[in-house]
Amino acid sequence: MRFTSEQRLDDGVLEREFTLGEIPGTLWTPASASASAPVPLILLGHPGGVRKMHSRLVARARHAAADGFATATIELPGGGERPRFAAAEQARADLQRALQAGEPVSEEIVDRLVLPLVEKAVPEWQTTLDALLALPEIGGPVGYSGGVISIGTRLAVVEPRISAAVLFAGSFVPRIMFEEARRVTIPLLVLLQWDDEGNDRRMALDLFDAFGSKEKTLHANMGGHTGVPQFEGDAAGRFFTRHLS
Amino acid sequence: MRFTSEQRLDDGVLEREFTLGEIPGTLWTPASASASAPVPLILLGHPGGVRKMHSRLVARARHAAADGFATATIELPGGGERPRFAAAEQARADLQRALQAGEPVSEEIVDRLVLPLVEKAVPEWQTTLDALLALPEIGGPVGYSGGVISIGTRLAVVEPRISAAVLFAGSFVPRIMFEEARRVTIPLLVLLQWDDEGNDRRMALDLFDAFGSKEKTLHANMGGHTGVPQFEGDAAGRFFTRHLS
Repeated sequence: MRFTSEQRLDDGVLEREFTLGEIPGTLWTPASASASAPVPLILLGHPGGVRKMHSRLVARARHAAADGFATATIELPGGGERPRFAAAEQARADLQRALQAGEPVSEEIVDRLVLPLVEKAVPEWQTTLDALLALPEIGGPVGYSGGVISIGTRLAVVEPRISAAVLFAGSFVPRIMFEEARRVTIPLLVLLQWDDEGNDRRMALDLFDAFGSKEKTLHANMGGHTGVPQFEGDAAGRFFTRHLS
Repeated sequence: MRFTSEQRLDDGVLEREFTLGEIPGTLWTPASASASAPVPLILLGHPGGVRKMHSRLVARARHAAADGFATATIELPGGGERPRFAAAEQARADLQRALQAGEPVSEEIVDRLVLPLVEKAVPEWQTTLDALLALPEIGGPVGYSGGVISIGTRLAVVEPRISAAVLFAGSFVPRIMFEEARRVTIPLLVLLQWDDEGNDRRMALDLFDAFGSKEKTLHANMGGHTGVPQFEGDAAGRFFTRHLS
């Protein structure tokens, strides 16, 4: 892990860009974080394209820092400036075509779109976690927050260092992930936009049902994919404060 | 409205029992409430039997008082010490029989169980509201919180003084209420227990979908009818603080 830039934001949060091999990422730590007072960590998931998402990611990072958490994100495979992979590009085009034609989105398209992404992204998150937890100012426990929900689900299954997750049910989910969902046992808060144009409500509710966690909460709100109300940011903060503090 | 008893709880909340005609009820006001500083009001819904529910109702009242709200409840028609009505008793017995036999609960049973209750209870809540709002220490706005969800739904439609509601989706809902739900426009927080033994999850989700409110949020948690997590009490408090303060 190599830090490539560093700036102190006005609320004292330290924002550091890094690269980890070919993967670009950003780490935000609250002013209080130090080797003698390491802070818990939240991994910030997103749909890819961290530059485009930067202002929203910074807002989430500041919010978490105010609650005493460090946050970090990395660019997704195929996202932002990272090399595209042709199969996923083709699947994304097929998905858009189906949505625009008002056709049902086939399982086959969803599999082609999401499964390779999960396969590539999850080990990258784990490597990133290794590097972050080696920093003296970062302690545990660790949470995951955001989309892509299939990535969060796989991480919750394979990565024992993740203790709690806020998952955004805002993307299509391959059938195979429902089996994995049953093996998730950590506390979950699942956010659902009731009229999400890039999602299937029934599938999201079925996935919530499938999660094996004894403590899981669903928060559904009106509006489309990007309309998550501001108060859900506060709810996520309280969820992590309960489970990571 | 005639007050029949009065006691000051240890946190300064004033608990007063009253009768309004034949209807018994209780009013809780925070220590701060006065004629020169009237407080907003939350009507506490419940499934009937206020004596049995007393400790839970007091807990909700104290929580609301800490947020600056007065609360009040009345016994349901046919509940507690109030005269039973035979038709509802028969419907309740039929419901229990169907549930115990693992049979689907027919719309006809649900109609017989719930509709007469709604017809009787809603005007009583409105009369109670008249009396409560005439007290100098009670101002507006007014919220409704709790079950029976069909009563809360009807109140939200017919009673313009109710500005926001937390509805507990923990009872069967007559088909006709889905039409009424479309006419609800106030902000809603709907609580659902995912494995509620006295409810139908699909029906609850359909009802949430049917509400006409632009701002509505669903919180679903694991567990049965009585297992609502404590943090949902805090969530309800924040919801009312947003909408009634």
